[in-house]
Amino acid sequence: MARTFDISDLIDRARRSEPRAVARLISLVEDNSPHLREVAAALAPLTGRAEVVGITGPPGAGKSTSTSALVTSLRAKGKRVGVLAIDPSSPFSGGALLGDRIRMQEHATDPGVFIRSMATRGHLGGLAVATPQALRVLDAAGCDVVIIETVGVGQSEVDIVSLADTTVVLLAPGMGDGIQAAKAGILEVADVFVVNKADRDGADATVRDLKYMISLGRREIRGAKWRQPIVKTVASRGEGVDEVLDAIASHRQWMAEHGELEDRRRARAAGEVEAIAVETLRARLGDVHGGDKLERLAKQVAAGDLDPYAAADSLIEAVRAD
Amino acid sequence: MARTFDISDLIDRARRSEPRAVARLISLVEDNSPHLREVAAALAPLTGRAEVVGITGPPGAGKSTSTSALVTSLRAKGKRVGVLAIDPSSPFSGGALLGDRIRMQEHATDPGVFIRSMATRGHLGGLAVATPQALRVLDAAGCDVVIIETVGVGQSEVDIVSLADTTVVLLAPGMGDGIQAAKAGILEVADVFVVNKADRDGADATVRDLKYMISLGRREIRGAKWRQPIVKTVASRGEGVDEVLDAIASHRQWMAEHGELEDRRRARAAGEVEAIAVETLRARLGDVHGGDKLERLAKQVAAGDLDPYAAADSLIEAVRAD
Repeated sequence: MARTFDISDLIDRARRSEPRAVARLISLVEDNSPHLREVAAALAPLTGRAEVVGITGPPGAGKSTSTSALVTSLRAKGKRVGVLAIDPSSPFSGGALLGDRIRMQEHATDPGVFIRSMATRGHLGGLAVATPQALRVLDAAGCDVVIIETVGVGQSEVDIVSLADTTVVLLAPGMGDGIQAAKAGILEVADVFVVNKADRDGADATVRDLKYMISLGRREIRGAKWRQPIVKTVASRGEGVDEVLDAIASHRQWMAEHGELEDRRRARAAGEVEAIAVETLRARLGDVHGGDKLERLAKQVAAGDLDPYAAADSLIEAVRAD
Repeated sequence: MARTFDISDLIDRARRSEPRAVARLISLVEDNSPHLREVAAALAPLTGRAEVVGITGPPGAGKSTSTSALVTSLRAKGKRVGVLAIDPSSPFSGGALLGDRIRMQEHATDPGVFIRSMATRGHLGGLAVATPQALRVLDAAGCDVVIIETVGVGQSEVDIVSLADTTVVLLAPGMGDGIQAAKAGILEVADVFVVNKADRDGADATVRDLKYMISLGRREIRGAKWRQPIVKTVASRGEGVDEVLDAIASHRQWMAEHGELEDRRRARAAGEVEAIAVETLRARLGDVHGGDKLERLAKQVAAGDLDPYAAADSLIEAVRAD
């Protein structure tokens, strides 16, 4: 099925909502293809328009259901929506573009929705590089909103989701340990809190706990304070979902007024550039002398003849001299 | 409290089981102290003796309880034990050496047990560097066994735990989604399977599912096959825990017979050296021209004037020229 590779044609087709063109572009930026740099250069001027929303929270909070409900609500408003589901433990490497996640299947046949599972079987740097590139594709393809959702709960996934313009942290009543875990790494990235499954016992107590935590540690940005709102939802029935979108819109407006949006996007770009540079250097480290150098150093380290810091110095020197 | 810094004295005291000396050494390798390289060099010849066991599994499988039960059993056999609890979402950065984890508190006053929570609030590279260094300290301090346990479930934590000589994957009956998630990233790193909470309904079904999965994808190493055993436990009552230790010992013997132990340790050393080299280079990338270079490039990328790959190339060039 080889045919002439035409990037501008591919991008045109992606912008006309052809799912296969979008999928192809994402694969091109994910798989480190020889065309990657060419694609990246072609995408750059088309990006920056999509609103980027991150959704994270402990397992069981209802992230997938909430994402699906948000997509429904955004579609009702006529928005084109992209979803990047970060799932490092997923067996789908790459994943089908449409309908690859059970709870999202209601959107599978909607040409205004693009869904992509971001899985990595390798180390995390891969995900840190691939996710912003997939975001660029969806942005360039004309998505009005891109939702980045984590399925996993590792710090790395939280880091990736928090690259969004607005980060929504989802909790559910009576999660005890979940909230404990959330307290640590997740709460501090929240711009909007959602207490999902609000029809369950303990929802008000969860809201109260959150209010208390917010009162303790509200973030200060440029002297102004964004007061993180708490929205109650029952995502499975679509209740409160429009209020979540309102809270996201308020946060966006607040950011625009305080110069925070540009700051975040610059920080996201910096992280993206750094991740690519680190991965490029990592590849070079592995390649020095056809990989022999690292192998020889590792043997010495494993034998206790060399410490790993001295070995790392020697590896870096070898890359420099290569 | 400043006093002359004497590494060999510190190491001597750590080898005499002084918890504060062990804690101090771990902090020195974790915190990128000016003495780090000196400490690393002093530790290297003392390492390689400890048996390293990794414990991972989905949330709710009972990892902490199982670790605690294994510690009890190892202590009854007179072994000195170190525990590194990988918890990227923990609020304890560094953490107290003793009794910093609730379920491990029964071991808090035992001088033959060292417990350390490995938390990171930064990016993951930090954990990938710090964990093997802490392992080196516990090894050099004379621990017979070091257990590396994950609390989180991200791929990164699984990667770190799988650096062990033997990796134990813990499941519990009726976890549905948990096993689904586990199937993907966790099962393939298992050397020993444990079905914990085996007094619950569905334990036999879980064992059956596991056997089926093992039959599908058994790992081949050098033509020989290690048949992953499945051990049933009720860790909260200590049931089956000695059988887990037996399974670990069998795996160890099998590895010794097939040259696998050296291979794994060399691979671990290679990963360690690479992680240190990558973090060193990452720091240099951030430092070029006092951080200005990355900031300038990020601005151009955020504005769509430059693609991130071209920016990364430019950043790497600047480091080289610096």
